[in-house]
Amino acid sequence: MLKKIEVFKENDFSEKQFKKLLVHDSPYFKVINFNFRGGQELPVHSHDIEGQLSITVLEGAGEFLGAENAVIPAGPGDVLISDISEPHGVRAKTDMRVLVTIAPPI
Amino acid sequence: MLKKIEVFKENDFSEKQFKKLLVHDSPYFKVINFNFRGGQELPVHSHDIEGQLSITVLEGAGEFLGAENAVIPAGPGDVLISDISEPHGVRAKTDMRVLVTIAPPI
Repeated sequence: MLKKIEVFKENDFSEKQFKKLLVHDSPYFKVINFNFRGGQELPVHSHDIEGQLSITVLEGAGEFLGAENAVIPAGPGDVLISDISEPHGVRAKTDMRVLVTIAPPI
Repeated sequence: MLKKIEVFKENDFSEKQFKKLLVHDSPYFKVINFNFRGGQELPVHSHDIEGQLSITVLEGAGEFLGAENAVIPAGPGDVLISDISEPHGVRAKTDMRVLVTIAPPI
């Protein structure tokens, strides 16, 4: 079965905090959409488990965050690859939509 | 180590056929960017192995393709989830950039 998720339609923004949409979860990977208002962020964090994740910018601009205050500019079409055990985060400068894929799923 | 790939900058288009960029390959997943000129397509195909894939539209419009001539409209922010063993494909109506994630990697 093919499953289509319209991320731009099915998730919106909140003034309080980034807004999260579970796009897909299976034994193979987990896919989550985060929407940020400019200024909102997913703080730097990590989990001490095997695996990797990608963070893809669908819309808007901001920064990928890493260990020791690393800041990497992030715009549409940019993809960040990180071990799950490596510190990573996202900060939005404008309204921003990203897609996070985690394999294997947490 | 964080690794950033600027998909919009690092891959372009070709008049002959869709253009492919290997974004990432690891034991956990493979990430590939395909750029299509309007009219180009990745024909419906499948592989008889375990796993799933996602196809995310980064830019442009077209169609996700499935078994028995299934056609599903595809626009920015749309994500298609498919088993690797399920027939799937993409056809572009305008210039179109998609990101394919395969877990576990083929």
